[in-house]
This record gives sequence, structure tokens and C-alpha cells, in this order.
Amino acid sequence: MGKNLTKRSEDYSKWYNELVLKADLAENSGVRGCMVIKPYGFAIWEKMQAGLDKMFKETGHENAYFPIFIPKSYLSKEASHVEGFAKECAVVTHYRLKNAEDGSGIVVDPEAKLEEELIVRPTSETIIWDTYRKWIQSYRDLPLLINQWANVVRWEMRTRLFLRTAEFLWQEGHTAHATKQEAIDEAELILKVYATFAEEHMAVPVIQGIKTESERFAGAVETYCIEALMQDGKALQAGTSHFLGQNFAKAFDVKFANKEGKQDHVWATSWGVSTRLMGALIMTHSDDNGLVLPPKLAPIQVVIVPIYKGLDQLDAISERVAPLVKELRSKGISVKYDHRDTHKPGFKFNEYELKGVPVRLAIGQRDMENNTFEVARRDTLEKETVAADDLVARIETLLEDIQTNIYEKALNFREAHITTVDTYDEFKEVLEAKGGFISAHWDGTAETEERIKDETKATIRCIPLDGDTETGKCMVTGKPSERRVLFAKAY
Amino acid sequence: MGKNLTKRSEDYSKWYNELVLKADLAENSGVRGCMVIKPYGFAIWEKMQAGLDKMFKETGHENAYFPIFIPKSYLSKEASHVEGFAKECAVVTHYRLKNAEDGSGIVVDPEAKLEEELIVRPTSETIIWDTYRKWIQSYRDLPLLINQWANVVRWEMRTRLFLRTAEFLWQEGHTAHATKQEAIDEAELILKVYATFAEEHMAVPVIQGIKTESERFAGAVETYCIEALMQDGKALQAGTSHFLGQNFAKAFDVKFANKEGKQDHVWATSWGVSTRLMGALIMTHSDDNGLVLPPKLAPIQVVIVPIYKGLDQLDAISERVAPLVKELRSKGISVKYDHRDTHKPGFKFNEYELKGVPVRLAIGQRDMENNTFEVARRDTLEKETVAADDLVARIETLLEDIQTNIYEKALNFREAHITTVDTYDEFKEVLEAKGGFISAHWDGTAETEERIKDETKATIRCIPLDGDTETGKCMVTGKPSERRVLFAKAY
Repeated sequence: MGKNLTKRSEDYSKWYNELVLKADLAENSGVRGCMVIKPYGFAIWEKMQAGLDKMFKETGHENAYFPIFIPKSYLSKEASHVEGFAKECAVVTHYRLKNAEDGSGIVVDPEAKLEEELIVRPTSETIIWDTYRKWIQSYRDLPLLINQWANVVRWEMRTRLFLRTAEFLWQEGHTAHATKQEAIDEAELILKVYATFAEEHMAVPVIQGIKTESERFAGAVETYCIEALMQDGKALQAGTSHFLGQNFAKAFDVKFANKEGKQDHVWATSWGVSTRLMGALIMTHSDDNGLVLPPKLAPIQVVIVPIYKGLDQLDAISERVAPLVKELRSKGISVKYDHRDTHKPGFKFNEYELKGVPVRLAIGQRDMENNTFEVARRDTLEKETVAADDLVARIETLLEDIQTNIYEKALNFREAHITTVDTYDEFKEVLEAKGGFISAHWDGTAETEERIKDETKATIRCIPLDGDTETGKCMVTGKPSERRVLFAKAY
Repeated sequence: MGKNLTKRSEDYSKWYNELVLKADLAENSGVRGCMVIKPYGFAIWEKMQAGLDKMFKETGHENAYFPIFIPKSYLSKEASHVEGFAKECAVVTHYRLKNAEDGSGIVVDPEAKLEEELIVRPTSETIIWDTYRKWIQSYRDLPLLINQWANVVRWEMRTRLFLRTAEFLWQEGHTAHATKQEAIDEAELILKVYATFAEEHMAVPVIQGIKTESERFAGAVETYCIEALMQDGKALQAGTSHFLGQNFAKAFDVKFANKEGKQDHVWATSWGVSTRLMGALIMTHSDDNGLVLPPKLAPIQVVIVPIYKGLDQLDAISERVAPLVKELRSKGISVKYDHRDTHKPGFKFNEYELKGVPVRLAIGQRDMENNTFEVARRDTLEKETVAADDLVARIETLLEDIQTNIYEKALNFREAHITTVDTYDEFKEVLEAKGGFISAHWDGTAETEERIKDETKATIRCIPLDGDTETGKCMVTGKPSERRVLFAKAY
């Protein structure tokens, strides 16, 4: 196809890295581990943001903004939280540069040392709960349902565009409740929001579950998650929602007077999805020709390429295309008419395939005579000739079809890659031969979980919320198991 | 009114600070100079973002995202740029914390020192132009019209909510062009966009002009600005658009092949507005009763307060109100029905006045009998009784009226506070007695500008783009002046 894209079957990881670059989604910057999100990639992220933001607001949440810096002492207040984040954070120690006295350039001014170091937020529980203490006095102030869209920094040593970067963009919800049950309900509500968004907007099927203790968020009592399966058989955690109990309320002394006037610590949740979703989106649907985007998130849903010789033919086509563009836009369909005369149609076809535009129209001389368009769909690469009169209706149907089709395809792949095993040998065999999720019994101990991880690199992705609850014996130790859990190698 | 708000005439500065807090817009955080933008304040900022973002896209710009960190060496590449920003930047020197060996807590790990310090971006020209070098080879890659919504940090010593904070939110546009004229046109186009947004969305009249050399952005060849006038007679710079010449292209070696195949450095602009606009919005319109918001930016445009005794009356009112709420929403009007039974109507009236909700409806027993509503507008505090059948149309008219009225009021104030003077004595007299903009002749030297600033605290806000070009003599030195410029004390 002239795209010089490595095939997935040859080297999936290389295919991904190349695709992100060639489709103009993102690239590495001059700052270690930090990416530049390019306009085309950012346009997809903006559509994700808009979809999620609407869902958050419909469920009663409001946006706010908290400082990017966290005083070191705040981070330390919740014991397991600091354990989880102190090892990989960017630390601000000074607030000024100056000219070096030896004329060698600009250096840190030692006189501008901060009394207390500031951490660039890896997540905002601590600064937010320090603020909530001032906002919450009574049950009338609850629930507090707040979300923030922000950048965060975790000093990861091994980074990959979108999947793991030192700086990433995300949303983080932080809610406060009067009762334990309300907070649990909130964490579960958000899990449903995330799952709905993943499946209906991204067309990515996800399994909803809870994390084992060792995979929990640092400071959480329970971590809920959605897990997706990539085409290479590896799982990807696409979003998490945490029930934090009273941990942060106790660490930051956030109490409220309940209806009876009694003081109690507040119950909390936090939850987030990040630009990592871009990685999940890319890896779930794309193929050896490039990106495949769900119509709901595609920055350009329909592209129109004229095929012509000479400006007279182009003018005639442009005249035919203009009302079509107008009609599609009036229906909320984003459309681009690419009449650049610096590039040939074949080049443009390749480019829009690479960029995953769901529907491509071409119109040449025969189409002009017959009053037709050639219509190609990106997901199956099928082409058809459609009469101009039927075109808008056909495009509307196609966009819906593509959204459904790529979801079904991903779902079928996922279903075909959930294997139930009863022995550890079988587990290892399936893991090597096929990958995917493996449903197996586990004795519930961190030791066994750790041993499996060390020996196979597979981790417990989740204890599925809707899995069966058949009891059995741990595949490794033979000890009793209350239910099967899902293992996989993961991103 | 029971709001305990300091009067503007008593202490304008205190009035502003109290209002920002009491109207739930923002507050100081535990991190020096960094603010928390509260949900109500953030909802206004979101509306500003949406309005500006639409205008940027309509003028051909795309959003992208660049790293928050800038390597120290990048900042140094453009000489005047580093001079302008090195003195007030947050410096990341380490990437890990660890437990102190003496058990005293968490400390910076000296082994995790960065080879090169990273600056938290005060503005992104340097990291962006380092990236553009990879994106631009030919005239076909130009123009590059990119915007970013981001947080930035400037270590200001004296901070005030929204007006001057160590961290603030903004958008920064960074464009690249093949010719000098194209770049100048872009900088001027954006100035028009900013002025239109300020006047039509924020209802804040602005003067468009250019800055003198000493007030220019660090690294710019020309800085265009919009200047607004606050009710205390001080000016506020509301947005700037910079023509950067080839300064950054040369510093980062960004060249392109023009149509003739010749290599040339790229021409650039950058431009930004920030959460400072919130300060301008608040100070332009608000009064001793609280915020006054333009309907186009008000998170709640219409609030409905029921006046009742007992739940039967409330139920009847709620039934009457439900279809009204639905109809208003269907017209895109944001409406809140505040039926909380924990607060009295008088309390609610005060609250919504304080929060600047443009239109307040009240409905009590007499209204129920007469099928009317009491309608109050926030800008003039006028009340009227409106028949239910006429209500929606009346509200639509009112929202337009309020938007126009507060703009006209601010414009009249501004026009009444532009004084033309010809002597330095008169200048000082007007500055003390009345404030506002003072139009005067100046000899064009930085020395005279500096002397005026030292002696009076007034600065040259701008050389207005549409001012007359009458020549004259500098009010201070008597030297020839090409035209009058606008002075003011400023935020």
C-alpha cells in the first residue's frame, strides 16, 4: 500500500510505534519521556474529552482546577500513597535561574531554594483533600462531586507514546460522601460510565472487575477497573475507579457533622482515565494499512477525493461536491474535501487509510457522468458505487455500521481469547501459544499471585464483577479458591 | 443585602478579593501563589474556553499539546527570552524522593539528580520551536497554525487570585509562516479575535494597540495587545499577540525551502490569554451586591426560586415550573430550579445576586393565582411581573438586553475615563483625581517612559491602532512626538 508500515504479525510493538508516528498522532519530545501530541492525535483526544465530560456532567459532576504542585509534606500524609508515588516524581527545589558567575551560561540560583520541595502532581488526592477540609463542615456540603482535567507527571523509566509517558493528560475525579455505601455506589457508577464510554464511543469492549490488593491504587480500599484486550493478546487497563474509604479524610482531617450533629470522617472516591486510552483505541482496531477509528471519535468522518485531469474537471467536481459537503455538515458529520493539487489521488487514499478516516468518497469523470460516487469504508476496505441521491443516507448508515462492526469484531476477538484453564501447565501453555485473558482459580494470596507473575509475567487483571462464582482449587497451590479470576500479560 | 461585601468605594481591592471568595470563584491553596479554581469559577472559564476555541478553529487553528517541562538549555537559546523568564521559574532538579536515613520522613534522593534541570514552562516558545524544526521543511508545511490549552508557572512574588498567580491556565498559540507579512497578518488577526471575544462574549470593551519596546514580550519584535479599564480607573492587559520575526526560528534553526527552493528562516507569532480574563470580567461589571455576569458566560443564566409554605404549595409550584424549565433548556438557556428546603427565599436571592445570575424568577402564591412570575434582572436589579405565556420570550429578550447593557455601561465608563492632556502637571493631576487612560504625547524614548513610571506609577498601556496621528511635543521633555499614546496605572 506504499505506507511502509511494519505488519502486526511481524512485530506488533514496532507496528504500534510506527503507526503512532506515521498517522501524525504523537511523537517524542526533547524532554525525556514527555510526548508531543500532534494536532491529529489531539483532535481524537478532544473528542474523547468531550464525550466523557458530558457523561460526568450528566451524572452530577462539576469541573474545577487544583494546583499542579504538591508540597512534599502533603504527599507523606497518607502512608501507602507516598510509598506508591515517591519513587517516580519530579521535584521542584528552586524558583529562579541566574547567569553563572564564570559566564558559562544559566544556572540554578542557590539563593532561590524552596523551604519545602514541591512535587509535580502524580495524582491530586493530597492537595485536593487538603482543600476539601475547608469546604466540608456538614452533611449539607456532601456529596462533593468534582472532576479535573489536568496534566500529571510520573517519572517512568521506560516510556512509550500514549501507553506510558512521564507526563500525561487525564481527568481525575475526587468525590466526598457522607456514607460508605454512597462512596462505593459512586465508584461503581463511574466504572459503568467508563465502560459505557469505552464500548459505545471507542468501540472497545471491556471487562469490569476489581483489582487484587497488590494491584490496588496506593491509598485505596478497593480499585475497580475496566480491562481491554489488544490484538497481540495483551491486556490493557483502560480506567480505574477507587473507593478510598476514609483514608484521605483521616490523613487530612476532613470531618463533617452528620444529620444527628455527630462528627465523622468523610468517605471518598477517586477515578481517572488518561491519554493511555489513545493507545487502547489504536491497538484495538487498527490494521496493517494504518489506523481504524470509530466514527464517533474520528476528527474527519468523511473525506472526499476528486479524480481529475486539469482545472476544468476539478472545478466541475468541486461544484458537484459543494452542496454535499454542506448537507453532511448540517447533519453534524465532519467532512473534508481534499482538493490539493500537490498530491495525487493514490497518495491521498493512502494517507486517509493511514489516518483511519471511516468513509472515503472518490469522484472521477465516470461518476460525474453517472451522477455517482465511489464509497469506500475503512474498516473492511470494501468499495461500492452509490448514486448521488442516495449518498447522504448511505453515509449515515455506513457510519453507524462501522461503529458497530469494529466493536463486534473486537468483541469477537476478545471472546475468542478468554480461555478457562484448570492447571498451571495448561495456563502457561495457553499464555505462550495464544495469550489473551485466562480464567483460572487462585488461592487469594499475594504470594501465589507474585509467583505466577515472576514465572510467567502474567498478572491478575481483575476479579470480574459479572464472572461466575464457582468455587474450586488454586491452579498453582491446590488450595481452595472462591472463584475464578482473569490473568493476562498486560501493557 | 446581608452579603457582608466591602463596598467598592471603601476599598476596591478588598472588594475584589472578598468577591472572588464569596462568589465561590477561586481561593488560595496550600501552595504559595497557586490558586484553586472552584467549580463555579471554573464553569465560567470553561465557557470562555469554548468561545475562544471555536473562534480559533474557525480561523484555521488546530489544538495540540507540548511538554510541561523545558530543558534549561532550550530556555537560554533566545537571549531576550531567557532574560525575561529565568528570574521567576520553577526548576525541577530531581526525579525521586526517598525515606530519610534518620527516619525523619521523606527527602529528595540525591542520587536522583537530573543531568540537566527542567523548567516548568512559563510559556512554550522554546519547546515548540524545537519541535517545529522537525515539522517544517518546505513552504508546503506552512503556515502551521497551532494552539495549546495549558497550565504555566511564573514564580511571581506578589500574587492575587486570577490577576497574578504562580500557576495559571491559558491558551498559547504558536504559528509559523513563510513570509514576514503573513506572520504580521496572523498576529493582527488574533488581536481582532481577542477583541471580538472580549467585547461580544465578556462584554468588556477593549482598546487595541501595540506595546512600546520596554513593555514587549521577551523575544518579540512587536507585541499587540488589548487593554481594558477597570472600575477603579486602572487598566488591565487582557491579551497579547506577538509578531516574533525570525527570532525563534533562528534560535532553533527552523528553515524551510521556499517555492524557489531557497532556504529561509520561518516567521513566527505567539499569542495568549489566560485566567487573568476572569479578573477583567469580575472587575468590569460587578457591583456592591456581588458579581454581574454577561449572559453569554454565565453558568446559570436563569434561576427560579419558589416561595411557599409547606410541601403542598411547593409541589404545586414545581409542577408549574417543570415545563418552563424544559422549554428554556430546549432553547439552550441554562436554568436552575432551586427548590432546596434548607434555605429561605431571601437567602437564595442574596446568593444568586452574589453569584451574578443574570435573570432570577420568583413564584409565590399570588403568582400561582395570577399565572405570573416575578422577574428580576441582575444588572439593574429591576423587577417586573410577567405573565406565564410571555415569559420565555421575555427571558430571551432580557438575556440579550443584559449582555448589551453591561457592555454599554462599561463602554460609557471607559469613554468617560479617557482624558487628553498636554502637560505633565495636568497628567499627574488627572492620574490622581480620576485615573483611567490618559492620552498624551511622548518623545518615544525608553528613558522618558521610565521616568514617568518612576514618578507616577503610570505606564504606556499601548499605542492605539486606531488613535489619531496628530504630531506634538512630549509632555515631559518637549521633544517632538509622532502621536499620542495611552498611559494608565495598571494591574
